[in-house]
Amino acid sequence: MPSVTSTSFDSERVVADLRTLAERTGGEAGSRRLCWTPEWVEARNLLREHLATLPVDVDVDEAGNLWAYLRGESPDLLVVGSHLDSVPKGGWLDGALGVMSGLELLRSLASSGRPPISVALVDWADEEGARFSRSLFGSAAVAGTVDVEILRGLSDKEGNRLVDILPQHGVDIDRLDGARTRLENVKAYVEVHIEQGPVLESMGRGICTVTGTKGIERERLIFRGQAAHAGTMPMPMRRDSFRAASRFALAAAEIGDRHDGVTTVGAVACKPGVVTAVAGETMITLDMRHIDAGELAAMLDECRSAAAEAAAAEGCTVEWEHIFRIPPMPFHPRLLDAARESVREVEGHDIELPSGALHDASEMARHVPTVMIFSSSTNGLSHTAEEDTPHEHLVMAADAFHRTCQRTIELVRAGELG
Amino acid sequence: MPSVTSTSFDSERVVADLRTLAERTGGEAGSRRLCWTPEWVEARNLLREHLATLPVDVDVDEAGNLWAYLRGESPDLLVVGSHLDSVPKGGWLDGALGVMSGLELLRSLASSGRPPISVALVDWADEEGARFSRSLFGSAAVAGTVDVEILRGLSDKEGNRLVDILPQHGVDIDRLDGARTRLENVKAYVEVHIEQGPVLESMGRGICTVTGTKGIERERLIFRGQAAHAGTMPMPMRRDSFRAASRFALAAAEIGDRHDGVTTVGAVACKPGVVTAVAGETMITLDMRHIDAGELAAMLDECRSAAAEAAAAEGCTVEWEHIFRIPPMPFHPRLLDAARESVREVEGHDIELPSGALHDASEMARHVPTVMIFSSSTNGLSHTAEEDTPHEHLVMAADAFHRTCQRTIELVRAGELG
Repeated sequence: MPSVTSTSFDSERVVADLRTLAERTGGEAGSRRLCWTPEWVEARNLLREHLATLPVDVDVDEAGNLWAYLRGESPDLLVVGSHLDSVPKGGWLDGALGVMSGLELLRSLASSGRPPISVALVDWADEEGARFSRSLFGSAAVAGTVDVEILRGLSDKEGNRLVDILPQHGVDIDRLDGARTRLENVKAYVEVHIEQGPVLESMGRGICTVTGTKGIERERLIFRGQAAHAGTMPMPMRRDSFRAASRFALAAAEIGDRHDGVTTVGAVACKPGVVTAVAGETMITLDMRHIDAGELAAMLDECRSAAAEAAAAEGCTVEWEHIFRIPPMPFHPRLLDAARESVREVEGHDIELPSGALHDASEMARHVPTVMIFSSSTNGLSHTAEEDTPHEHLVMAADAFHRTCQRTIELVRAGELG
Repeated sequence: MPSVTSTSFDSERVVADLRTLAERTGGEAGSRRLCWTPEWVEARNLLREHLATLPVDVDVDEAGNLWAYLRGESPDLLVVGSHLDSVPKGGWLDGALGVMSGLELLRSLASSGRPPISVALVDWADEEGARFSRSLFGSAAVAGTVDVEILRGLSDKEGNRLVDILPQHGVDIDRLDGARTRLENVKAYVEVHIEQGPVLESMGRGICTVTGTKGIERERLIFRGQAAHAGTMPMPMRRDSFRAASRFALAAAEIGDRHDGVTTVGAVACKPGVVTAVAGETMITLDMRHIDAGELAAMLDECRSAAAEAAAAEGCTVEWEHIFRIPPMPFHPRLLDAARESVREVEGHDIELPSGALHDASEMARHVPTVMIFSSSTNGLSHTAEEDTPHEHLVMAADAFHRTCQRTIELVRAGELG
């Protein structure tokens, strides 16, 4: 493991940059950086102002991702970054922590002369997908996992079509594939992000290594029984779809808990959905996640059995509709070692967690050695104006990110990442 | 028990009148007699055409109820009737069976000369409440149980206010109280209706005596936990409001079943209500019914305990919001005897059921001796175009209704109903 040399990397400046960003594009009601809106452009303008003071080449790729290249001795490339876009009324740290930490990395490297390899900061476009319901837009375009035909059908709540909005930001949906060339020469990807969950806080810790992002199975279940009058249909003769859905929701929770994964029934709709009628049809959504593909598959199998049993117990049927699937994305063993070493140096422990949320790192991990660092999240809250992290945890996260990047640069230079 | 003398009452003509009504105001998609619409007025025009051939006084009261009085030897009054209004795409029998049976009663009595007491047919206005969400409108106005201030706030789905629509039908919301005078001289009320449930059919029977209408407790429950990211919040740390609601729904069903009542959770809404979030808040509706007030109160008590336990088990709280309450309305003992005798004569059994649905009879039973007769409902279906009843059961129901009315007239004449 290479040693870390002292640089001018200033973690306090990362937090100061985050506060400036929040002042310009946030406020009492939370961050206002919804992608493909003027306020998101304003956030990028702030980033461009910072980058203009550095010896970097800045451009935007075919998917709207903003890149800043610091050229080094070798064209081999370490990419760092995250996203400036936020959900409406979101938090000040989600995504922004990774971008501002990457900016500080460029500053510190530039101040020490020409680095041994090239380093790029990327601000991914539309990580949240909060406006058009397609998350990881920019990183998926670079990874080549975007389905353009699906994009053509997307509209926001006001009925604006994605294909009409993108050209306002220089993005042509038919040229997205061009962004894939950005993978050339990329040897590693490092991202620092808030946990967006309560685990680190519950352990009394500020940072940790992230082992990968969990695989996800997302399904829609429709339980069908018989709609009936709430007053005239005797209990023993009912085929109550909501009772079937209730049985399933409790069984699914037990399955997730037992496998040490997560299962969530988050959306529910009954038909006819009135106080005076037994629900003839109940739709629920199911989101399942696990860091291990085998465990995730087992959870799905058990949920299928549980749904069939719940339906049968109430004289109902159940139909499954697939929504979304992504496999677990384990991070790279050598970069995990680099992150562990860095976390140990900064906070003195070996804690590591899988990420329950997807990140741009999930797309990058498909193609290049990748790792992430987490900071804690106060009360586990994110995607809300209350999102926060103790100041000292932000400083530690930026520090551990920097140390991980230094180690990664050395691994790339030495040709140890292949 | 007085004996029944032969008259010209023709049960087949009741069914023929129902078919004519369905031809004029129904069709493939179901009945089109939503109250306070032109098609409901058209249904009433058909009724008025029939009444114009009879020696009856027809008028409309302050609540929009249509009355047809056949004057008898005494001003003492038997009221019969039901409602012509239907839900959108409703059935051909719900309400209409009682009106057309009452019409035939007037015909048969008029053909036999002046009856010993007066008899009135009433077509109640807006029994369904399907447009403005206030059922039993006309009968509640006569019973004096309408809250005018609540009526002022009601609008239909298009935003039309009830107070603006009623004057088009001659109804002034500030003069509703005038309808209460219609109770003068009323000594009894008899109504025949379809069961709207599957019980008679499941017993292989066509008709029965109705012992009363079940009391109803209708509540809204809001379970509150903590909204959280579906990927980042570990199962043991969740406070999942939908799991609390699911536990409660299963417990409530068990409570209703054990008390031989009915409990229904028919409407559900989660917040934020998306596939990727644990539901921080889940609203459900609860409808509970029982013919015995003590059992209904016990069911409510047990549901309160069950909700508190379900909430606690998931780290949530629960809040109750009262929606609606009506006590059980047991029918009159002497009229129940009259109905039982009639059902026995027509179908040869003593089956009796409480009504799980409310009827205009529920409002009348507050003030005057009341009874009802049920016909079966095919597959237990109502409020849908599929609503039906075997022809021979409709004929038996009209016949039993007629016999019950004849007995009631004799009881009133003899002063035995007080």
